[in-house]
Amino acid sequence: MIERNIFKNISPLDHRYSLRKENFEDYSKYLSEEAKIKYQAQVELALVKALAKEGICSFEVVKEVEKAIEELTAEEVYEEEKKTRHNIRALVNCIQRKVSKEAKPYVHFTTTSFDIVDTANSVRYKECAEELILPTLKELQKILMEIALREKDTIQVGRTHGQHAVPVTFGFAVAEYVSRLGNRILAIKESGERLKGKMTGAVGAYNASHLFFNNPETFEAEVLEELGLEASTHSTQIVEPEYLTDFIHALVSGFGVIANFSDDMRHLQRTEIGEVGEYFGKDQVGSSTMPHKRNPINYENIKSMWKEFMPRMMTLYQDQISEHQRDLTNSASSRFIPELIVGFLSSVNRLIRTCRKLVVDQENMEENFNQSKEMIVAEPLYILLASLGHPDAHEAVRKLTLEAQETGQTLRELIQDKEELEAYWQKLNQKQKELLTKPEKYIGIAVQKTEKVVDYWQGILNI
Amino acid sequence: MIERNIFKNISPLDHRYSLRKENFEDYSKYLSEEAKIKYQAQVELALVKALAKEGICSFEVVKEVEKAIEELTAEEVYEEEKKTRHNIRALVNCIQRKVSKEAKPYVHFTTTSFDIVDTANSVRYKECAEELILPTLKELQKILMEIALREKDTIQVGRTHGQHAVPVTFGFAVAEYVSRLGNRILAIKESGERLKGKMTGAVGAYNASHLFFNNPETFEAEVLEELGLEASTHSTQIVEPEYLTDFIHALVSGFGVIANFSDDMRHLQRTEIGEVGEYFGKDQVGSSTMPHKRNPINYENIKSMWKEFMPRMMTLYQDQISEHQRDLTNSASSRFIPELIVGFLSSVNRLIRTCRKLVVDQENMEENFNQSKEMIVAEPLYILLASLGHPDAHEAVRKLTLEAQETGQTLRELIQDKEELEAYWQKLNQKQKELLTKPEKYIGIAVQKTEKVVDYWQGILNI
Amino acid sequence: MIERNIFKNISPLDHRYSLRKENFEDYSKYLSEEAKIKYQAQVELALVKALAKEGICSFEVVKEVEKAIEELTAEEVYEEEKKTRHNIRALVNCIQRKVSKEAKPYVHFTTTSFDIVDTANSVRYKECAEELILPTLKELQKILMEIALREKDTIQVGRTHGQHAVPVTFGFAVAEYVSRLGNRILAIKESGERLKGKMTGAVGAYNASHLFFNNPETFEAEVLEELGLEASTHSTQIVEPEYLTDFIHALVSGFGVIANFSDDMRHLQRTEIGEVGEYFGKDQVGSSTMPHKRNPINYENIKSMWKEFMPRMMTLYQDQISEHQRDLTNSASSRFIPELIVGFLSSVNRLIRTCRKLVVDQENMEENFNQSKEMIVAEPLYILLASLGHPDAHEAVRKLTLEAQETGQTLRELIQDKEELEAYWQKLNQKQKELLTKPEKYIGIAVQKTEKVVDYWQGILNI
Amino acid sequence: MIERNIFKNISPLDHRYSLRKENFEDYSKYLSEEAKIKYQAQVELALVKALAKEGICSFEVVKEVEKAIEELTAEEVYEEEKKTRHNIRALVNCIQRKVSKEAKPYVHFTTTSFDIVDTANSVRYKECAEELILPTLKELQKILMEIALREKDTIQVGRTHGQHAVPVTFGFAVAEYVSRLGNRILAIKESGERLKGKMTGAVGAYNASHLFFNNPETFEAEVLEELGLEASTHSTQIVEPEYLTDFIHALVSGFGVIANFSDDMRHLQRTEIGEVGEYFGKDQVGSSTMPHKRNPINYENIKSMWKEFMPRMMTLYQDQISEHQRDLTNSASSRFIPELIVGFLSSVNRLIRTCRKLVVDQENMEENFNQSKEMIVAEPLYILLASLGHPDAHEAVRKLTLEAQETGQTLRELIQDKEELEAYWQKLNQKQKELLTKPEKYIGIAVQKTEKVVDYWQGILNI
Repeated sequence: MIERNIFKNISPLDHRYSLRKENFEDYSKYLSEEAKIKYQAQVELALVKALAKEGICSFEVVKEVEKAIEELTAEEVYEEEKKTRHNIRALVNCIQRKVSKEAKPYVHFTTTSFDIVDTANSVRYKECAEELILPTLKELQKILMEIALREKDTIQVGRTHGQHAVPVTFGFAVAEYVSRLGNRILAIKESGERLKGKMTGAVGAYNASHLFFNNPETFEAEVLEELGLEASTHSTQIVEPEYLTDFIHALVSGFGVIANFSDDMRHLQRTEIGEVGEYFGKDQVGSSTMPHKRNPINYENIKSMWKEFMPRMMTLYQDQISEHQRDLTNSASSRFIPELIVGFLSSVNRLIRTCRKLVVDQENMEENFNQSKEMIVAEPLYILLASLGHPDAHEAVRKLTLEAQETGQTLRELIQDKEELEAYWQKLNQKQKELLTKPEKYIGIAVQKTEKVVDYWQGILNI
Repeated sequence: MIERNIFKNISPLDHRYSLRKENFEDYSKYLSEEAKIKYQAQVELALVKALAKEGICSFEVVKEVEKAIEELTAEEVYEEEKKTRHNIRALVNCIQRKVSKEAKPYVHFTTTSFDIVDTANSVRYKECAEELILPTLKELQKILMEIALREKDTIQVGRTHGQHAVPVTFGFAVAEYVSRLGNRILAIKESGERLKGKMTGAVGAYNASHLFFNNPETFEAEVLEELGLEASTHSTQIVEPEYLTDFIHALVSGFGVIANFSDDMRHLQRTEIGEVGEYFGKDQVGSSTMPHKRNPINYENIKSMWKEFMPRMMTLYQDQISEHQRDLTNSASSRFIPELIVGFLSSVNRLIRTCRKLVVDQENMEENFNQSKEMIVAEPLYILLASLGHPDAHEAVRKLTLEAQETGQTLRELIQDKEELEAYWQKLNQKQKELLTKPEKYIGIAVQKTEKVVDYWQGILNI
Repeated sequence: MIERNIFKNISPLDHRYSLRKENFEDYSKYLSEEAKIKYQAQVELALVKALAKEGICSFEVVKEVEKAIEELTAEEVYEEEKKTRHNIRALVNCIQRKVSKEAKPYVHFTTTSFDIVDTANSVRYKECAEELILPTLKELQKILMEIALREKDTIQVGRTHGQHAVPVTFGFAVAEYVSRLGNRILAIKESGERLKGKMTGAVGAYNASHLFFNNPETFEAEVLEELGLEASTHSTQIVEPEYLTDFIHALVSGFGVIANFSDDMRHLQRTEIGEVGEYFGKDQVGSSTMPHKRNPINYENIKSMWKEFMPRMMTLYQDQISEHQRDLTNSASSRFIPELIVGFLSSVNRLIRTCRKLVVDQENMEENFNQSKEMIVAEPLYILLASLGHPDAHEAVRKLTLEAQETGQTLRELIQDKEELEAYWQKLNQKQKELLTKPEKYIGIAVQKTEKVVDYWQGILNI
Repeated sequence: MIERNIFKNISPLDHRYSLRKENFEDYSKYLSEEAKIKYQAQVELALVKALAKEGICSFEVVKEVEKAIEELTAEEVYEEEKKTRHNIRALVNCIQRKVSKEAKPYVHFTTTSFDIVDTANSVRYKECAEELILPTLKELQKILMEIALREKDTIQVGRTHGQHAVPVTFGFAVAEYVSRLGNRILAIKESGERLKGKMTGAVGAYNASHLFFNNPETFEAEVLEELGLEASTHSTQIVEPEYLTDFIHALVSGFGVIANFSDDMRHLQRTEIGEVGEYFGKDQVGSSTMPHKRNPINYENIKSMWKEFMPRMMTLYQDQISEHQRDLTNSASSRFIPELIVGFLSSVNRLIRTCRKLVVDQENMEENFNQSKEMIVAEPLYILLASLGHPDAHEAVRKLTLEAQETGQTLRELIQDKEELEAYWQKLNQKQKELLTKPEKYIGIAVQKTEKVVDYWQGILNI
């Protein structure tokens, strides 16, 4: 039963979230069972290459193994596993069957299963990071940068506690995510590059390889170099778990960043707020205005996926613990790591599609800002009065704002009527006066900061 | 791309752990995407049945819908969803397309998507519990009961802190799991039966159905009765989440019980302990002795699966929170619940297969017990001396055991030499004296308790 | 160093969240270290009571122990523990020191430490549930019920996806939490009552007590009856962990309910929504109007506490696993359970205080509803047209709403102009017509349902 | 109620695990509420220092504030908070009360509460890492290194699946933890150093400070420099959460490493294994032999604490999400971070004390190894035969080991009898032959690797 109707699958990743062919093929290339077996075969190949270099076997063996693994299929290995009841033994048998009698002994020579399994996982996660995860994240980052720059001057009321605070610009708000995502891209990159391999045998002491090599660490380094990896300082039957734990932490905390962005956008789409939305699709004739009502289903989906995958970090932390030179209670659980990566990638890709269509409703954004315009001036007014030595600035401003609310007058108008305050007013410089009359100017350095943040991360990430 | 090579799948549940055809078909029947859509169609059918009973539509409509959903495929619905971008709208369109013009309006009449989705999930999880989860667990329970009774008299040293303590019997040790698993079977049964449906519309106030029914709660009850469900006291767009949360808690805590059993068996299989193992398979010619060394891979696998799935309970707790009459941030995450159920079932089935072959190494068990035989007597000796008024029983026994260790004599022999202690000895009754000379008798009521536990749960669970 | 400045404490529960003296004394009564030791002493007392009943010791011993534990202090036990390095041994020594030579042997007679520890925890959590947790929750429930009834007729727009949907009443929205909290109150009550004790000795087989009792289970039942507990079907050194796991699950899922309520209130307090707030305090002169801006800090605090304590359920699930007759890796972790209970209670008490002052801004609520008034009619119009056989009701209504948006006319007005639709209009009954002209009537049975929900839970919970 | 009997506290950290005065004072210095307030006051001081440098206020103001915060107590601030209901406002009031009228306006000048709170937390966690966490971990690391070197030659059977595998040395086994702990020490160091501060005001755009500074980022940098911090690329009301998330991840994953070590030691102390233990205390007369039975309570405690604190990482991940420029749902939860740090430190300190007394039972270790001595040779024999071209090495060795088991002969003896195998034997080199006759030599490069690992980490960590 190799071919199966995908709707008979259990995991949403294998039916629902695998419908976009182009994306799913990318995921499957690194993260399917087939991919895993291919990477394991690559490690077996790297092994014979190093053996040949060391003069243990001929380069002919390398060619034979190279050819053998090209023909290898996952079905074949699984078929063999029914007999061996051991997945790596099955893989080895399948390769050996395809090579000459002379070559056979060198397949899997001196290694233990987890030399292959752990090393193969490190290679594929590392390559997946370099070739798929990071490029996808950079694509998102690029779009966020564009939005940040495009909207760097768009005044938006800042919000804390869900309450209007002093203003920012929408570009500045997006720059938060440029910075945080940039930071996580670095974390993923660094932790991905640090993933380690091993070729130290059943308990990590090079027991078997030492039968043939005086310096088995050198031999290990040669095998791993073929694969672009280094060895960790120490290993047992398995690579020290912290390297992978760090990598997944980087992904999970990156997931948190896009979940937060999605939450923000969801709330900005609330009927009463209505500050952002999506462009109409092409098929929706002639209009690029925002629809009256549009459910933020993509942002909801991303938040929801985060809730599904974030807790799985607990599995990684539990899998740090393995008795003695290893118990195998991390074997099944570590098979689910690809789910977590696909869940994340799937959400990043969704966010890319959604952000491409993100549109700001300038009118609503301005209207919401105007709702609190006068109150916003209260903060700088209080600070300025205090800095000028007003003995009770906070109380004075509180009264003034109450009066403003009741009379509908602006604070500036009210100050003119108060002799006491007018004296302070005269001491203000031009910039300060302007801010008190034009609250939309009270955005600090939001514009410059937005540019600077984008510029900084463009440089760091080279995008 | 409906048919797919399973090794291109991401989830181990959809390649590795779906290789046992018979099990996977069971899982897929309730827990695949296809199954979900079938259950949703059943809810649409129950709806028109109730409408017909209420005289809103004719019974002819019921027949049409019944026929329509028989022909319905998941592919078709997904194909339609590409246009509607809404899964339940797609389902409704597919059904409507198959019925007469007259019947069309009654499909999905007055309901909102989540009337269908949540109700369908409750039915399928409830039926999955009744028809698959509980029978599977009872099968395991039956095997554990058999082992408990079979080994009720087999002396095993009790262990706390991993240290030898006073003895039990192996049957008594297994009876722990009979009791705990029995308790969880009840919890799963009860929480499964309590799963609720709803037919209250977009925000839970029966807004739409109230257009046609004076008492829409009665109508709701009729629809749900068709499906064997009841409504919760209140619902919004969704059923109150606590019913499902309780059900999954019951499963997750049930998973904890079998994980603990597996951990125990793993450790009892340690080389130095070697108290349990597995029978040789049929193909292993002529021997039913225990292999010298057998890796406890099945127990390891179960523990590992528990580490993978237990943390997912966090998703359920997070999904309790949904803003106002609902945000949709529980939509994607709740699609992964079937993974958790399959993960659990897959482990229970593995444990069934493994326990069927569980064999006790009587010799090792006895030898391990003998290792601490003499020390074990220290506890009852101390208690008895104290009860007889010995002024410093603890110290007296401590010295005695040190002497026993040094001289190799038994405590009984040593007591005879100590005049002071011999006096106390004479005051003991027959049973007490026997226990002090035969430590293997110092098992309390382990045997009777084992029988009683098995008997109790047989009665409760009717197995 | 027994007396300590509380600000030197590490846990916020022991400085910040223990400032309300009346609450903290309640918590401390059940959940401090002192309380734990007191409950353990109670179990020791129950033990000698049962011994006296069985004729093993005299009733004089009971009196002595009763008096001894009255005088017992936590300091004393901790002082003793410095020597014994074993907390229960320390407790026993302290009691023995206070009784006569004759009574000494009966203190802790035949029991193991965890007979005392686990039983004491079950008693105190059970009593804490009955005497503190449930009354506190019922107090909150009562307030929610009052709000639900008070606001049962207050129209509020229903919200899904954060978008306006069809209307409910605010009372109906609160009734959701009456129902969900009611459900959790039951779950806490039931799981609290099910907490079990044990008196089965070091490995659960009654090894020591069987030296003196032919039926040690009867003896166990007598001890536990003194404490209002029952024994579980089976125990090892410890009570089966699932009873406590269920109890904490009930609390954690109850925490989720109030976190959800708090999230709703937080969002309803957003500047742009402004539907709920708090009354001014007494000291705030002369006004009961809502403040211009009020940060929802209490609701934020509750959500935040939930984020802190919810994940701790993972500890309970991990503590289900204990090797053989017990490893002690659940010992330290189970000492933190009181933190979780206090965290929950503290949040419930905060919510009680906050809800007492909850005030609805009728004006904003109406204004927000009006914002979508016309669009709301679209749903019933579509449903009614469809039910009357309109061949393309959805499209017809879509066009109509677009026209309404552009022209500013109501749907009712537009229908009159469309000959085709006017024909359907005539077929509607009075109630249906009214709903289409008065969207505020389109609330289904929100009012009755609110009353019913409150009534139901009043009956069930007897409040 | 400032002074309180510690046994009335709720958290075990504030009664049980704070009994070692010397340790608790260390923890409290950084991690109590008092410490938090002191650090916040330091940030207020750094602020006026920068203001003075910038010429905004005089250096006299700095002196006044410096003096004021010296006198400041936590009680005072909490007393004030009762009025202000805002903790930072309370702090500011308390400081202002102690300074001259002229100085008052410069206290807290242009900043928002979280400029102070987040910056103060970063300083104290950073200093706590440098001054307390890292030194404590290095102390542990030093002890582990000593054990590794001391036991580098002590043969121990390697264990995978809890089954005997090929041998290592005990020093090599400990070197695993030297390497993993070293790796985590680096991770804690790096992530601690990266903790950031901010001085960007209420929404992160420097709105208020820009009133006075043309380049408020420079001003921010000056304040932070006083505290040894840098600013993050972007902030809102709060510092980007990922820096703290990474730091706590480093701690939590470090906790995982010592939990794993503790699990290993626990199991090596099992009665049947008995390979490690603790020295007797001084008061235990005259003996340094291992006690017959010693419960591994310290290792159990560490594992248990890990189960308590590891899940709290979920809180950090949830706290990554904060709406817009901030919601406050991370406020209460972040107050519990000190608990996590103290939980970890407390376990590290316990491990230090325990490892100081760790003793190897050479006899048991050798005996356990001998139990599988002959079987161990099977692996190299199989590998060597295969490398020499034996057509069916695996089967040949399997038969040989069965024969060895039955006859009690060694593999070497049996080979001599088999003509076919004897031929291969002759082709082996001296080293290979030796390994097959002396299994205790089959430890690969365990000894050199141990030395190398210790040496490497000594260099990196400079200890």
